[in-house]
Amino acid sequence: MKLPLARRTRRMRRSTIREILKLMARQGIISFAGGLPSPDLFPLKHFATAMQDAFRIDGASALQYDVTEGYLPLKEFLCGWLSKRGVRCRPENLLLTNGSQQALDLIGKILIDPGDRVLVEDPTYLGAIQAFDPYEARYATVPMDDEGMRIADLQTVIRAQRPKFAYLVPTFQNPSGITMTLSRRRQLLDILHQKNLYALEDDPYGFLRWSGEKVPSLYELAGGKGVIYTSTFSKILSPGIRLGFVVAEPDVIASLVLAKQAADLQPNTLIQRAVYHYCKRGYLDQHIPFIIEAYKKRAEWMLEAMECSFPSTVEWVRPEGGMFIWCRLKKGLSATRLFKEAVKQNVAFVAGTVFHANGGGDDTLRLNFTNSNEKQIREGVQRLGKVFART
Amino acid sequence: MKLPLARRTRRMRRSTIREILKLMARQGIISFAGGLPSPDLFPLKHFATAMQDAFRIDGASALQYDVTEGYLPLKEFLCGWLSKRGVRCRPENLLLTNGSQQALDLIGKILIDPGDRVLVEDPTYLGAIQAFDPYEARYATVPMDDEGMRIADLQTVIRAQRPKFAYLVPTFQNPSGITMTLSRRRQLLDILHQKNLYALEDDPYGFLRWSGEKVPSLYELAGGKGVIYTSTFSKILSPGIRLGFVVAEPDVIASLVLAKQAADLQPNTLIQRAVYHYCKRGYLDQHIPFIIEAYKKRAEWMLEAMECSFPSTVEWVRPEGGMFIWCRLKKGLSATRLFKEAVKQNVAFVAGTVFHANGGGDDTLRLNFTNSNEKQIREGVQRLGKVFART
Repeated sequence: MKLPLARRTRRMRRSTIREILKLMARQGIISFAGGLPSPDLFPLKHFATAMQDAFRIDGASALQYDVTEGYLPLKEFLCGWLSKRGVRCRPENLLLTNGSQQALDLIGKILIDPGDRVLVEDPTYLGAIQAFDPYEARYATVPMDDEGMRIADLQTVIRAQRPKFAYLVPTFQNPSGITMTLSRRRQLLDILHQKNLYALEDDPYGFLRWSGEKVPSLYELAGGKGVIYTSTFSKILSPGIRLGFVVAEPDVIASLVLAKQAADLQPNTLIQRAVYHYCKRGYLDQHIPFIIEAYKKRAEWMLEAMECSFPSTVEWVRPEGGMFIWCRLKKGLSATRLFKEAVKQNVAFVAGTVFHANGGGDDTLRLNFTNSNEKQIREGVQRLGKVFART
Repeated sequence: MKLPLARRTRRMRRSTIREILKLMARQGIISFAGGLPSPDLFPLKHFATAMQDAFRIDGASALQYDVTEGYLPLKEFLCGWLSKRGVRCRPENLLLTNGSQQALDLIGKILIDPGDRVLVEDPTYLGAIQAFDPYEARYATVPMDDEGMRIADLQTVIRAQRPKFAYLVPTFQNPSGITMTLSRRRQLLDILHQKNLYALEDDPYGFLRWSGEKVPSLYELAGGKGVIYTSTFSKILSPGIRLGFVVAEPDVIASLVLAKQAADLQPNTLIQRAVYHYCKRGYLDQHIPFIIEAYKKRAEWMLEAMECSFPSTVEWVRPEGGMFIWCRLKKGLSATRLFKEAVKQNVAFVAGTVFHANGGGDDTLRLNFTNSNEKQIREGVQRLGKVFART
């Protein structure tokens, strides 16, 4: 019997990265391909304690159905925690989701009609493309430089392509590691405001800064108006617990709540309770500096090794936080082809094409440094250097 | 700024039942309105132990990203467990989801094009309508009697309305409590097979039978061909942990995996590990008989009280399992109007209209007996009896 698939399924594809990860896991090679947080930095003991709190203190209510909007005490904690970081909000501005991936899916579901264009950075986050594709989105891409999205191009693209809303990862971007400067952020918001366009600000890495000065979020700069902000516990606690959140004006949240209710009724009751106890015990703030310190070291090892081993034709931007370093190869080289060479040398990265919503970018690649130790980083980069030098 | 909502959002509505539940919680009245499992039957201690196992045995991997398809050891356990219950499957037939609500959403996402008709029982499960509505489904409704969906009507409806697939809750249906007979199931499958139509079999209550003889699932009768089966841990363990599953042919699962990856990457790693340890310790099989025993008693108290207090014009079917009793009022009466009277007497139910995908059914209502104790059941039914008798 033939499954009578809906038209939108033509746009659903497996994540290239998840496929690479499966391959890597089997072969046991040095992988800079994933975007995995380091498991040795998961606060296993403290989260287990918080989970015990949930069973002991909340009892049966931790296992029962709960409201779609999310667990109020956790939302209240988050309001305080985020406000200290510039994202001023109240519980009615918040919805808990299954990681920020679900936030992207639900936002796509309430905003995208087939054929609508989403304005994105070029390159952009692959997971966002995956989330928007099933709603039959098209993309209006705006090039980036070291300071983030290029504003001159932004205006041209908006005029020519009339996007429905703008999606950005302005801080320690995945894949490029680049942080949009304050002046660019202001210009961006001015233009979007003029054109009546919402910004969707995806900020999974913003809490992981080890150098340079904090740049305010788009949400903060816009005073919450016209910006939908999303972040996650994935990079500061654990990705396996699938807990993220959206901050936005109450009417946006109201629409997302309807979409969430239809999609899976509500966020996980037990996980929300455990995360609440974890936060309330002060563990969240206690733990983040350890992650930052560890990732800073790994980034420095990688950058140092790159300086030593990579040919001078390879260019990159030093990230001030986050999980990725983005490289540009000598013009004319193909990262897709070099990937095959690299795998022969038992080292992997992600070729840049997958991050370009409308194609192109095969002279770029993404390196992840968070899930490898010093020895792997130095050895892997050296091998990559040889592969790059040979071409 | 105006949110540029997609067309599909016009079809998104709040669940009437979830709104009633919020109201009930505030007023503290006797509520037969919800569909909540009884929290005093949650295996709190045993699930806490299983969670400790996950932290102790699996360590950091319990908090890391994992594959979209679901945790293999849990899938292997489920295959054995389900096969003993007639649902024969292998891990490649299984996808773990956030409760069966997500299964309904993902199936809607891969199958429904705007305007497609879904064939449903009349009445049908409200959550399914909520899941399918955002994909702009229409509905082809087939009336039910005490033996389930009426087969003569089924043929007429298929011929006239050409549905895309059929959605059914054949066992202890929500809302009606009715179980489709074996002979009806066979006829249904024959017809669907002839017409090349998939059946989506939603089976959250099938494991909760206290009387009568087990009827094989549609999946079992069809040997897994042309049937997509979904169930959940919500009613046999806990709904707050949001874990359900789909069983289907591998090509169906492959499409659902793509949709799940776009929607929220993967099922919750930690919850899957904890549920695995819970099952492996034998707690699942140990615990279900307690739930069945308790619900049997509550159903009997309610039925007994109904015999005593309800006027002879009210009709109902005695359920052999599950969580609901469906009542039909004297022709011409409105359950929506009686609901208002009942709330004045501090007792609540759900008026039947919300379960009718194409309207109608205001002379019906749903009673839930799982989340009230004996005193509440006897007192609440007596009050209802007075309200019904007065009209």
